[in-house]
Order: sequence, then C-alpha cells, then structure tokens
Amino acid sequence: MNPDPAAGSAPDPAGPAGRDAQALAQRCADVMWAQDRASRRLGMSAPEVAPGRATITVRVGEDMVNGQGNCHGGYLATLADSAFAFACNTHGEMTVAAGFDIAFVRPARLGDRLTATAIERARFGRSGLYDVTVARDDGELIAEFRGRSRSLGRPLPGVAGAG
Amino acid sequence: MNPDPAAGSAPDPAGPAGRDAQALAQRCADVMWAQDRASRRLGMSAPEVAPGRATITVRVGEDMVNGQGNCHGGYLATLADSAFAFACNTHGEMTVAAGFDIAFVRPARLGDRLTATAIERARFGRSGLYDVTVARDDGELIAEFRGRSRSLGRPLPGVAGAG
Amino acid sequence: MNPDPAAGSAPDPAGPAGRDAQALAQRCADVMWAQDRASRRLGMSAPEVAPGRATITVRVGEDMVNGQGNCHGGYLATLADSAFAFACNTHGEMTVAAGFDIAFVRPARLGDRLTATAIERARFGRSGLYDVTVARDDGELIAEFRGRSRSLGRPLPGVAGAG
Amino acid sequence: MNPDPAAGSAPDPAGPAGRDAQALAQRCADVMWAQDRASRRLGMSAPEVAPGRATITVRVGEDMVNGQGNCHGGYLATLADSAFAFACNTHGEMTVAAGFDIAFVRPARLGDRLTATAIERARFGRSGLYDVTVARDDGELIAEFRGRSRSLGRPLPGVAGAG
Repeated sequence: MNPDPAAGSAPDPAGPAGRDAQALAQRCADVMWAQDRASRRLGMSAPEVAPGRATITVRVGEDMVNGQGNCHGGYLATLADSAFAFACNTHGEMTVAAGFDIAFVRPARLGDRLTATAIERARFGRSGLYDVTVARDDGELIAEFRGRSRSLGRPLPGVAGAG
Repeated sequence: MNPDPAAGSAPDPAGPAGRDAQALAQRCADVMWAQDRASRRLGMSAPEVAPGRATITVRVGEDMVNGQGNCHGGYLATLADSAFAFACNTHGEMTVAAGFDIAFVRPARLGDRLTATAIERARFGRSGLYDVTVARDDGELIAEFRGRSRSLGRPLPGVAGAG
Repeated sequence: MNPDPAAGSAPDPAGPAGRDAQALAQRCADVMWAQDRASRRLGMSAPEVAPGRATITVRVGEDMVNGQGNCHGGYLATLADSAFAFACNTHGEMTVAAGFDIAFVRPARLGDRLTATAIERARFGRSGLYDVTVARDDGELIAEFRGRSRSLGRPLPGVAGAG
Repeated sequence: MNPDPAAGSAPDPAGPAGRDAQALAQRCADVMWAQDRASRRLGMSAPEVAPGRATITVRVGEDMVNGQGNCHGGYLATLADSAFAFACNTHGEMTVAAGFDIAFVRPARLGDRLTATAIERARFGRSGLYDVTVARDDGELIAEFRGRSRSLGRPLPGVAGAG
C-alpha cells in the first residue's frame, strides 16, 4: 500500500538497465568527486554510490570540534549535505540542493568515525527528496537529515551518456 | 553500519516483550481515539498501531478540496499529523508534537483514498523523530512528513501500565 | 547590509504601482476565497491581504480540540497554510505549496481566537518563502510556520490583469 | 496583534537591564569564540552580538567552492549555524542546536563576502527558534535558515553572572 517510492521505480540492479544505471551513477560520482575540493579537504572518503544512493565517511578532526570536544553541527550538516549531493546527482542530470532540514540526535566527539548514508525517497518533476542518516562506527545515530533537490534539466557536465 | 534506529531497539514482536509492547500500543491508541473528535470528524479511520507505528486512512471529501478539486495541504498535514500523534504515543508516555515538516509530492483529488503510515525513526532523551508517508490507494506518493515529538515524562492518562 | 528581502523589492504602497499591486492582491484573494470551501467551513475569516501578505483569524471550536481541550496541531497548520496560500497568490500568478515547516510554541485552547499573519520573506525564480506567525488574541505566540511555494508560471484563473 | 516575540520581551537596550543583558551577551560570545577553533579556521569574523542576536561575516574561499566556483551548501549552513549558536547563547545558559532548516535562495561565489544575521524569534520553556539570513555584501539574499535550540538548564561555563 505504501511502497518505498525510491525502490518502487528502480530497475533490477542485476539486470542490464540496473547495470547501466549503476555505471552512470559511478561516472557522475567520479566527475563530481574530482572537482569537490571542499569535501576532500574535510577528509571525507570518496563516496560509494548506487542509483539514488551515496555513502561517505569522515573522522571528526580537531578542526571540527569546539572547546568541549563536540563536533560542530555545521560539519555534521556538511557531511550529510555531501552525501545528499552525490546521491541526487547519480541519474546524470545536474541537480542542486534547494534546502534541507537536519535534526541532531546526539553529539559526535573528536575522533569519532562517522558515516552518512543518503537514500532517495522520492523524485517528482524536477524535485527530489533524500534522507541522510549520520551514524557512528558503532551504529549509534548522530543526526537525521532530509534534503530537497532540484534538477536543472541538463546533463551533468563531463558525464558521457548523462541526461 | 547504519541500522534502522527504530528497529534496532525493538523487541521481537512475537516474543513476550513484543506482545506486551503491542498491547500497550493498542491501549494507548484506544484511549486517544476515544477522545479524538477532530480526527473522527474528518472521516479518518481508527488507527492501526504497533510500537512506534500507526496507519490511518481517509477519503478526500468535498469539504477538503478547493475550486480545482485538489485537497488542501492543511488536510494532508492534518492526516499525517494524526498518524504521527498515534505513533509517538504508543509507548505509554504522554507525548506531544514539537513541530513537523511536510513536502507535497503530488496533489490528492476529490474521492482519493489516502493512507498515512507513521514510522518511528529515532527516540533520544525525551525527543523523537517520526516519518509519515501519505500515499494514494494505488501506491502513488502524495506527501512526505517528518514529525518532531517531545515526551512530557508522565504516563498517558487512562492507560493502565503506561509509563 | 541584510535588508528585508520582501520589503526591498516592493513599490511604494501609496504610489500608483503600489495601488495596482494592492488591487491585484485583493482580486486574487477574492477569487481564491470564493472557491475555498475548506477554509470557510473551518470558520476562518476572509483574509486581509496586501502584496505578499495575508492575515486570517479563526476561533478554536469544539471540533478542533482533543480530550484535553488543546487544539490539534493539524488545525494550527491548516490555519497557517491558508494564510500562506493567500499571501503567495497575491501577485496574480497561480502558486502552490511545495512544503512547509511548523514549530509549536504553546497550546491553543478551546475558545481561543487565533490570527495567522503571513509575510513574504523571499521570491527567487519560481520559488518563494513565507513566514507565518500564529498568535492568540492577547499576543501570545502559538506557532511559527515557514512555507515554501512554487509558481506554476501562469495567471491565477479568473483574475483580470493577473500574470 | 502579532508582535515580534523577541522584541516583545526585551528590556530597553539603553536602560540598566538592557546594558546588563548586552554585557552578558558579550561575555558569552567572548568565551565561546575563544574556544571556537572551527569557525575561526573557516575565516569567520568574531561575532557581533546583542541579546538574542549575532552577526558573523566570512569571505568565500577556494576551499569552500566546487568545480563551478559555487560555495558548498554545507559551508553556508555552517556559517548560519555559527551565527545561530552565538545568538542562542547570549542569555548565559548553555544552549545547543536541536536542528535547523535551510533554504538556498541563490548561489554564493568564490570571493563573495557573506554576512549571517541571527535573530531570536521565540523562546519558550527550554526551546528557542532563531532566524538566520545569509546575504551578500550588496544585499542579495543567499539563504534563509531557521534554527531550533534547546537550553541545557545550566550556566555557560566560564561566564560570570551567567544563568
């Protein structure tokens, strides 16, 4: 009755269309990552992607914490926003963030290894909704993020077969 | 690595703790529904509940639409908000809405039968996050809602064994 | 340095352009209100409008409260959403809600008279942001709402000179 | 009828209570800024504060942009989040972010000088709502942010007379 809207429209990942979609997602991520100096500089891992999905990890460094050793919310949002950006650009269309909401569940601490996992929840017209969960290595939930995307209606530059 | 935070802490539904949790959820829903004149008046079905979950259905009536026959966003939000309220009150603690965000995916029309499905995403301290999906009978996604709850730290009145 | 983005682009309300904008806003509101059976049925007052602005009042009735006499959040959201809809349709272009966020500040009670005041915060491309404050007669804040609008790029039907 | 809830409860800034509140706000900002290595490292200016308010500026540097020269949304959110953190900690109580929503209005570009202005919209119980506007030097609006705060109910460490 209430199917996962992302999964509902996805091709079989192991079939030809699924393999093409995965190859396109990977090319999009490669192009974006090559240009993404900001994410690299924060020590983020290159994203693992699938159509509508992306996962990024980072370790909380000394430049990301306040005097109490807690990670700034802005960095948590930046991590989630990066996973969101990669996930919403896996379809070959240049897509930007219209906005997002983030809820902080518990503090991340200096040295924590964090993983942001972005999953497409819906695409409709040029809009999209993506849920990003930020969790610690041991599975503890750190933050929940929901991103709102807008496609610009043109292929991602540098991605053959995009659009 | 990134488990479903709701599922992660839930007891086996078929075990004794799971059966107790389900019985408590049902008692909470019964008490709330008996008092919820507003939801009943809008023609909502009595909620189906489980710990951290609730499902409500409604048919879009003539009083809910504008001149173009589209359902008012306020009614979609009210439907989702009701499912959210039942879901976050399944644990026996009196819990209220601190706020929510809703994204409208496509219009609902006069006569559509809509289902709101609320799922607990996280509970931490007295706070909670709940995702509510509003979908049409044929599975088309209508709206995505995320509710933020606060427990008042006292049992739900009238629920034996609550708290 | 950080001007009110709505006010910044508005013509002098007392000049000819301002009078035309006000007349257009009023015609838009008249057309929408005539079709808005849902808002009228909830006992809302006809909106007072200006370009990018709308104010609506309602008294909390017995059908809007739960067993504790507190107004349902869904009704507060519906009231704010109606003010938002009128405000974002004052420019003559047919405009719909893409989504909104609401934060509940304190409960509204049976018999309270509530006013929702919507103010345009930004318009950019076809998007808009509107802040709606819901307050009680005595000035106590009840809820803060932020709506996200999308223009459909065509005139509001039935409004001469729209678009 | 719908007063600015922040302004409504503020003492006369030029009176004794207003001067005390301003002095407390400044001490809070001084303590926080001394520990805020993350904000300083991003090149943010020390905040200008008043009770419930904070302003921070930053220039968009090469490490903050993507291949197209547009500033990452994560950095815009971090800038707004920093202004929010300073504003909600001006009252002497240790206060943390529960979450926030941000809407991106137009891109910021390499070299742009940005100002984030945070204004308290409401405080109720231990919760607060703060609006942060991010604008460019020439007044163009870049982003609108709304932060949700929670006081921890204890004085900000190191601030004499706090709490």
